[in-house]
Amino acid sequence: MQQVKAYGAKDKNADLKEMTIKRRELIDTDVQIDILYCGVCHSDIHAKNNDWGNAKYPIVPGHEIIGKVTEAGAKVSKFKVGDIVGVGCMVDSCQTCSACEDDLEQFCENGMTGTYNGKDRIGGAESDHTFGGYSSSITVNEKFVLSIPKNLDLRAAAPLLCAGITTFSPLNHWKIKKGDKVGVVGLGGLGHMGIKFAAAMGAETIMITTSPGKAEDAKRLGAHGVLISKNAGEMKEHQGTFDFILNTVPVKHDINPYLSLLKRDSTMCMVGAIEPLEPMHGGSLILGRKRVAGSLIGGMKETQEMLNFCGEHNIVCDIEMINMDEINTAFERVQGNDVKYRFVIDMKSLKN
Amino acid sequence: MQQVKAYGAKDKNADLKEMTIKRRELIDTDVQIDILYCGVCHSDIHAKNNDWGNAKYPIVPGHEIIGKVTEAGAKVSKFKVGDIVGVGCMVDSCQTCSACEDDLEQFCENGMTGTYNGKDRIGGAESDHTFGGYSSSITVNEKFVLSIPKNLDLRAAAPLLCAGITTFSPLNHWKIKKGDKVGVVGLGGLGHMGIKFAAAMGAETIMITTSPGKAEDAKRLGAHGVLISKNAGEMKEHQGTFDFILNTVPVKHDINPYLSLLKRDSTMCMVGAIEPLEPMHGGSLILGRKRVAGSLIGGMKETQEMLNFCGEHNIVCDIEMINMDEINTAFERVQGNDVKYRFVIDMKSLKN
Repeated sequence: MQQVKAYGAKDKNADLKEMTIKRRELIDTDVQIDILYCGVCHSDIHAKNNDWGNAKYPIVPGHEIIGKVTEAGAKVSKFKVGDIVGVGCMVDSCQTCSACEDDLEQFCENGMTGTYNGKDRIGGAESDHTFGGYSSSITVNEKFVLSIPKNLDLRAAAPLLCAGITTFSPLNHWKIKKGDKVGVVGLGGLGHMGIKFAAAMGAETIMITTSPGKAEDAKRLGAHGVLISKNAGEMKEHQGTFDFILNTVPVKHDINPYLSLLKRDSTMCMVGAIEPLEPMHGGSLILGRKRVAGSLIGGMKETQEMLNFCGEHNIVCDIEMINMDEINTAFERVQGNDVKYRFVIDMKSLKN
Repeated sequence: MQQVKAYGAKDKNADLKEMTIKRRELIDTDVQIDILYCGVCHSDIHAKNNDWGNAKYPIVPGHEIIGKVTEAGAKVSKFKVGDIVGVGCMVDSCQTCSACEDDLEQFCENGMTGTYNGKDRIGGAESDHTFGGYSSSITVNEKFVLSIPKNLDLRAAAPLLCAGITTFSPLNHWKIKKGDKVGVVGLGGLGHMGIKFAAAMGAETIMITTSPGKAEDAKRLGAHGVLISKNAGEMKEHQGTFDFILNTVPVKHDINPYLSLLKRDSTMCMVGAIEPLEPMHGGSLILGRKRVAGSLIGGMKETQEMLNFCGEHNIVCDIEMINMDEINTAFERVQGNDVKYRFVIDMKSLKN
């Protein structure tokens, strides 16, 4: 059992504060990681606030982790001490079900182990509760540890582990290619990565937003055009022209106007809103044989593919660095959409 | 210009009554069809009642037409006088757009011509308004006329032209095959055909219904099992086990419980509800990368494939025959779900 310095919340109403957590001792398939940087995901706030009703306190958030290997178990083959690695939203899964066999551990039929607020399958600490990356170190099965391409800015690479894979996976799964017209709805932590990936895949990438003020930034990020969804004339002009729409809006909204933008037999994929949407009209799907789908992060194999793709295309996130003790203010700013586009914690600030 | 005996409504509040309509003269690509039987589709009632806001009166409904060719234009190559043929929901399309080129005339980008309440592309009658199968004869471009397999009961074949293709097309498009587990939600004109087709394609076919009283009939139609969706225990037992769900419910309803039945990466296809649904939960799609899609009848090529499939498997609809002057009562009974499972009008009763 290891004592590890961390930053967490004791209950939903509490601010995050420094605390000591207990992690399991390294086993032979584990790597021990000294955490360098950790991204701040909106999910961290949902979890801390128990918005999904499954919080077990204390909660130590953080699932966009970049660090350095400090120890490797006897059976570890992929990593060695000194390697720069990443850990995302999962730290384990059953590894035997059909989803795990299909390299889709995020859909593990026996339940993947969340990096935080999950149930450790190994145990050995006082509790079997998992704690995330707002901490000085983490101990993870090597199968759930990723290699980070050497050319990437490590700070800006941290949010690739969640925001990156969440947007890369659907674009990859639906085989977005050169010449496709792809819409990205919503410009936040997810949307800004959706633009970068879709553009890098060769698609004509259109930012779809309610806010004309976001146009300039969308273009800087790689969008070829901006569609203001409040403008009925513009919406009509683009009607039936999109091959794929990535919808990153994280809250309840009306998806019918976006469905009207799709070509026949095309898909809009939801990655943000894990909550009830405004009523969808059956005709929005029936007329044009359209589809609305969902996607959840990505499996470990695809997450490594995403990181390799980022290495090849030199893609990282747009970030603002903070110190650990600024996290409560950062949470407030995330909730007010006041970040471009992801906070990343410099974990040195916890250790000193 | 031809004067044709028909049964139609002068406005939304009027009963259907006998009337005379004017159709265009036969042109060289047309066949003239003496109508023998016409199915009664719920859409006929929606159109007559102007539920979709696009009614142009008088309305002569009917798009499940079986008849005999009485005349064939000079350029007609597929049919000759005496052939038994069918006409479904469309009588024309632009035939030049990408949808028409893909044999998906139902999605014609310039608007397919509905069999009734549509705009005739040829014209030549006093108005260019199309009139449906509740009439003694119809004149249709041969491209929109179908061959009826000789072994089928012609009366019971009539509803194949709408209810049949509406349910066959999604099962065919999503490549349902032996060994798949397919759910059919709703047991009406559409649902009863969904069961027959899914079972004939070799799928383990499960009727999903709120009504335990429908179990016996579902099994008679070919369902291998019945899932009562109000029974939480049964729903849980089937959770995550379906390869495909065909949702034929024609009214607003909650689709979230059905989405929970799907396997990862599987699809529920909506064919009934052309109206707003109850709010869908984003998580219903995101957890399991599931999809909800829509499907609209089928193109002419696929409709002929469906009829050929019916010929091979000896599939027709379960029907109740009525005379033309019983149509207003039939409309009431359809609205009360009091028909097993489709009314078909014996058109002799209009002619005598």
